[in-house]
Amino acid sequence: MADVQQALDFVRANGERYLSELKDFVSIPSISTLDENKPDVQRAAEWVAEQLRSLGMDKVQIMPTALHPVVYGEWMGAGKSAPTVMIYGHYDVQPVDPLELWTADPFKPEAHDDYLFGRGVSDMKGQVVASLKAVEAIVRTTGLPVNIKWLVEGEEEIGSEHLEDFIKKNKDMLKCDFCLNPDAGMIAPDKPTITTGLRGLAYFELRVYGPDKDLHSGLFGGALHNPAQALIELVAGMHDRDGKIKLPGFYDNVRKLSKQERKDFKRLPTSDKELKKLMGVPALWGEKKFIPAERIGARPTLEVNGLLSGFTGQGSKTVIPAWAMAKISCRLVPDQTPEETEKQLRKYLKKNAPKTIRWELKNLHNAGAALVETDSPGIQALAKALETVWGKHPYFKREGGSIGSVILLKKYVGAESILSGFGLPDDNVHSPNERLHLPTWYKGIEAFTHFFYNL
Amino acid sequence: MADVQQALDFVRANGERYLSELKDFVSIPSISTLDENKPDVQRAAEWVAEQLRSLGMDKVQIMPTALHPVVYGEWMGAGKSAPTVMIYGHYDVQPVDPLELWTADPFKPEAHDDYLFGRGVSDMKGQVVASLKAVEAIVRTTGLPVNIKWLVEGEEEIGSEHLEDFIKKNKDMLKCDFCLNPDAGMIAPDKPTITTGLRGLAYFELRVYGPDKDLHSGLFGGALHNPAQALIELVAGMHDRDGKIKLPGFYDNVRKLSKQERKDFKRLPTSDKELKKLMGVPALWGEKKFIPAERIGARPTLEVNGLLSGFTGQGSKTVIPAWAMAKISCRLVPDQTPEETEKQLRKYLKKNAPKTIRWELKNLHNAGAALVETDSPGIQALAKALETVWGKHPYFKREGGSIGSVILLKKYVGAESILSGFGLPDDNVHSPNERLHLPTWYKGIEAFTHFFYNL
Repeated sequence: MADVQQALDFVRANGERYLSELKDFVSIPSISTLDENKPDVQRAAEWVAEQLRSLGMDKVQIMPTALHPVVYGEWMGAGKSAPTVMIYGHYDVQPVDPLELWTADPFKPEAHDDYLFGRGVSDMKGQVVASLKAVEAIVRTTGLPVNIKWLVEGEEEIGSEHLEDFIKKNKDMLKCDFCLNPDAGMIAPDKPTITTGLRGLAYFELRVYGPDKDLHSGLFGGALHNPAQALIELVAGMHDRDGKIKLPGFYDNVRKLSKQERKDFKRLPTSDKELKKLMGVPALWGEKKFIPAERIGARPTLEVNGLLSGFTGQGSKTVIPAWAMAKISCRLVPDQTPEETEKQLRKYLKKNAPKTIRWELKNLHNAGAALVETDSPGIQALAKALETVWGKHPYFKREGGSIGSVILLKKYVGAESILSGFGLPDDNVHSPNERLHLPTWYKGIEAFTHFFYNL
Repeated sequence: MADVQQALDFVRANGERYLSELKDFVSIPSISTLDENKPDVQRAAEWVAEQLRSLGMDKVQIMPTALHPVVYGEWMGAGKSAPTVMIYGHYDVQPVDPLELWTADPFKPEAHDDYLFGRGVSDMKGQVVASLKAVEAIVRTTGLPVNIKWLVEGEEEIGSEHLEDFIKKNKDMLKCDFCLNPDAGMIAPDKPTITTGLRGLAYFELRVYGPDKDLHSGLFGGALHNPAQALIELVAGMHDRDGKIKLPGFYDNVRKLSKQERKDFKRLPTSDKELKKLMGVPALWGEKKFIPAERIGARPTLEVNGLLSGFTGQGSKTVIPAWAMAKISCRLVPDQTPEETEKQLRKYLKKNAPKTIRWELKNLHNAGAALVETDSPGIQALAKALETVWGKHPYFKREGGSIGSVILLKKYVGAESILSGFGLPDDNVHSPNERLHLPTWYKGIEAFTHFFYNL
């Protein structure tokens, strides 16, 4: 029996246990942005370390950073002539609010029909477990044909803030030929996908301050600039009527799409109608000169992620609020940088903020944009694996999200990332009722198993 | 000894007990806008009814409305030749959030130096107790020289929604010569004030809906109209760059100020510097053609009272929110009406809301604007009382707030309201650390005592 067949048989025989272990992992509410979940984040790191130990990995360590730790482990037994593959993952998850929109407890994962529901099942605990379980199947049967290094971080959902410092400090330990990063998704269950581009991110909190306390709108309204009004004027002014972003110089460094790139985008299978349904919106929107896939994959955005000011409870309160807050973030494309974006935003605010209020801008999260080459041996091995399992050549796409590690590994270790994964567009990642399509997940474990033998 | 002197002696002898009773009243968290405080609102009504009974009032009743009850009581023993004065009050209060800005529990009133702190001490439990205690002093000494009817409602802070129905149904019972309404304030502790104009109010909640759930800003951003962005564009567009309100026809019915009215406004003693300090703002703001007192007293406004959308917690969450909400209210002046304002707002939204989102507008609160005559016997009696206590003729001013009862009593009972009261501009009404200036409050009780004998 071929090596890969032994490992695939192991995967099939252990599918139920794999799912049960994924449920254990998802039950840990490892929300990295909330202070109160810090012990849970630590528990999730320990869960991953324990898995690596049980796979016989060496040097398994929970390595501290300034906030949440990185889990590391390696197995170098394939020798110097074999390639060394890093496997990247993150064990942290997004917050769950609005909690009332979940139909079940986000941290008591339950399977219904073909789906497992819970925060992080798709993004990306399911993907981490898929990699662990493919490696387990190989370790328990034929043994690994390649060297492996694991890098599983706990700050991806808050911008991998301390990963740069960690990778910089440990670049020798992290040396590898390339990195398998399963934090990108698929276009559809029948369309295996490799992601070749990612947008960057610059995330801000803007606060506008007016009176030194909330005021009665009857007693004072008309004589002062309402900070909520000033805030929305400022933020609304960041787009023109056609949806173009008005920060000074914002588009200057946006790399133009080549003819071939525009062709590739047009070939992607998601129709406008499907996208509309997926998002649940009455109509699509965006830059008219670009099709929606280009707007998401290759064009920068500026989004309002949150608004808060004054009285937001039931009924009415006639108050002029003392302050107003907006969370604002830009998705960036090559060759924009978060640092430039912050400068442009500050310039815009300095120019447009009226003297009748005071403002404060905090940068909460930065990540660069990335494009990867499609003809590397790693991508070819993965493409072949996907084709074996799905029976069709994978789609190459550019995705709108941001993954900090991709930039950092390139910069400090010289390693390209191979972006793939088995999440689906309707998995509700970052949203209520996040879910994982289990048939696709099982196929994914098999594809990763093939991948290691293909190398 | 003159009648009034006996009553004034009683006031002075009982000042400490009066304060202690006010504290009891303020301890009841009668927040009318919150469902969970409904039992407290009921308790506050019972507290008022008990006071009226102890004053020997007849027909004391807690009369139900569709939401919070009205407390009624009367004493008609002065006979048909004597005037009948209604005393209006409200026993409900505003919410207390942001609670963290209070330096003490808003419902455990404490006196420090010359001030009593607590929600409702100034607006208007202090004023209700001032009227009760002036009447008590007269009842316990010489007896009342006039007939009295009490109308104390529990919905003023939420727009007196059911007061219209109540007054309409009970207009015979409520018949009176005029109404003393102590829900208006003073310009300064040394400047007794009678308010001759009030702005109206139209309060709305606007919701904008985008995708049917929160979406990942990386995976979808660029292809849909963010509802938070759509909301702020709509609301920001309600003012032009000079602060003029852009609802169609908004200014059409605004009554022009006469030369005399503009002169009266100029004579008001609050300087721009004082107003700036009072509000705690870096600069004043508003329509350039009008001085701040006019902007507050005689010009309409449109204010954002609250904003809520998406992620508002600590840190960053890369979400495109499913919906966004703004609380918006207009202060109205003669001859605008809340009904017209709602029509104008809906017209604006219909014209300007893009097809890429869905919107919903709820009207939460309406009140008309009012102007009263200054030469009535009631106003003259009060003016004389204020002059006796403060040693100077009162100031006549127009105020920016709204009191629904003023319009309703005029409409159904034919009674003008005499607007006064002993709250001060820096009492932090509707804000954290609401307070009452006790020396002014005691003077107010004496002034009300004089008032009844002056009639």
